[in-house]
Amino acid sequence: MRGAPAIGIFAAYAIYVLAQNIAEADFDGFYREFSRLRSHLDSSRPTAVNLSRQLSRMDGVALANKSLPIPELLRELRAEAFSIHREDIAMCRAISEYGLELVKAGDGILTHCNAGPLATSRYGTGLGTILLAEERGIELRAYCDETRPLLQGARLTTYELYNAGVDTTLICDNMASIVMSEGKINAVFVGCDRVAKNGDTANKIGTSGVAILAKHYGIPLYVFCPSSTIDPSCETGAGIEIELREPDEIKRKYYAEPMAPEGVKCYNPAFDVTPGELITAIVTERGICRAPYSESLKVLYE
Amino acid sequence: MRGAPAIGIFAAYAIYVLAQNIAEADFDGFYREFSRLRSHLDSSRPTAVNLSRQLSRMDGVALANKSLPIPELLRELRAEAFSIHREDIAMCRAISEYGLELVKAGDGILTHCNAGPLATSRYGTGLGTILLAEERGIELRAYCDETRPLLQGARLTTYELYNAGVDTTLICDNMASIVMSEGKINAVFVGCDRVAKNGDTANKIGTSGVAILAKHYGIPLYVFCPSSTIDPSCETGAGIEIELREPDEIKRKYYAEPMAPEGVKCYNPAFDVTPGELITAIVTERGICRAPYSESLKVLYE
Repeated sequence: MRGAPAIGIFAAYAIYVLAQNIAEADFDGFYREFSRLRSHLDSSRPTAVNLSRQLSRMDGVALANKSLPIPELLRELRAEAFSIHREDIAMCRAISEYGLELVKAGDGILTHCNAGPLATSRYGTGLGTILLAEERGIELRAYCDETRPLLQGARLTTYELYNAGVDTTLICDNMASIVMSEGKINAVFVGCDRVAKNGDTANKIGTSGVAILAKHYGIPLYVFCPSSTIDPSCETGAGIEIELREPDEIKRKYYAEPMAPEGVKCYNPAFDVTPGELITAIVTERGICRAPYSESLKVLYE
Repeated sequence: MRGAPAIGIFAAYAIYVLAQNIAEADFDGFYREFSRLRSHLDSSRPTAVNLSRQLSRMDGVALANKSLPIPELLRELRAEAFSIHREDIAMCRAISEYGLELVKAGDGILTHCNAGPLATSRYGTGLGTILLAEERGIELRAYCDETRPLLQGARLTTYELYNAGVDTTLICDNMASIVMSEGKINAVFVGCDRVAKNGDTANKIGTSGVAILAKHYGIPLYVFCPSSTIDPSCETGAGIEIELREPDEIKRKYYAEPMAPEGVKCYNPAFDVTPGELITAIVTERGICRAPYSESLKVLYE
């Protein structure tokens, strides 16, 4: 399971499904077990904020309905999970509509990782604009970073864009510089997992590098996300925990045989933080925010 | 066969070996066939300058000995090929000695692609300094970009450094930015395939991106190469032809199964050009050159 919005939706459905199996008949017993399940789910991915946020929304529904019999409380939880999903679809659509203001026919768009329907719902965040443009006959050219080590760009993004009829070219992550230098790229589109109050943004590993390249070549970089991805408890990117993953994802995963000697160490952070200064705009369902982000983002969470 | 210096040495041996099979007994007939073989070898890799240069040196030996009987001429070619190889070993050693001036114990060095013994001879160019430092008890920490799509960093560089006892950590190409941002890297070491008169440098795809990141983070980037890699016929990097390779290197090579849909296009340049402005110094067997390169490199080829 991956993609910050999808993780949030999944968590909402998951806590509802797990809550159905709680045996306790009184609210206090039920809620003790509910809280244990919630913190277990919450601990699974430290970087994305949507996970915590949607679980906390489900928690609110449980507490607000503590006087109801448990079966009725469960129906409220179910309705809330469906609402979260429906709202996500409407939100992705709104983000994509705002994104259309940032492109014109013929533009080359570089993507990193996957922020399409497989990571979110329906349109996706980062890819939504490209897919919506295609629907409306505005032809864009997509260049997709393969996004090592888990290859979400190669496996998911090219799949989604190619099947939607978009002109799609796969590149290795280290080719982002040459395609920019050759004038093939007019904008970079990425999703994100968490945005701090100052605009610092955690997203898939490599995003900060792509942002530095884009700045060097004078190409705008746009972050696409639901406003719920902005975490007002996070002053700057320094407060965002970065998940470290297994060495074998780099050395072995997907390969027919290991690609480096047994004893060699690997460093495998799953995300990095792109400073707000490197981000041209943050596109949310409530509009396009630009620097200074400590001002422009405030209206979204206050 | 890869690594610009190794390709040059290989080409010298190869033209000697192929020339042994030329049936013609008179020089004109011999030289016609020799020239055909030379241009065939010369056309095999467009980006590296050492290939052309060493073949042209072998050609000079053939022409200088046109009055000799063919078997004696062949002995001269053989001696020249051995000289080219011996000189390369001495040269790599000299490059590595100069490189030691640029590091201190405890430094973290980021490498891209492979510029070690497997790409050159004995010490290598880019890796020579790290290997020589290890021999002398100066401990460095190497971070190696895996270098997609052919993974020379994972398959060759980590192999060479780890086996020499160096503290070696493998990362994906898109992790170069985070290791720099976390203060793990004190310098970037790369080899190169061709250097223009103004310092613009062709090297393995991704080098220009790493150079832009290094500049952003204020980290020096050093290019290591024999002075023969400087091509005085090349005014700027715009004159360097970039080899484009097969899509399947990105989608399929080394994987147990294809990683992107059949119809998706790939763009697969094997090299890119790093502008001289992004290079802190070019380290050759004849010393360390710094900007302005149009001045400092001149003494090496004039």
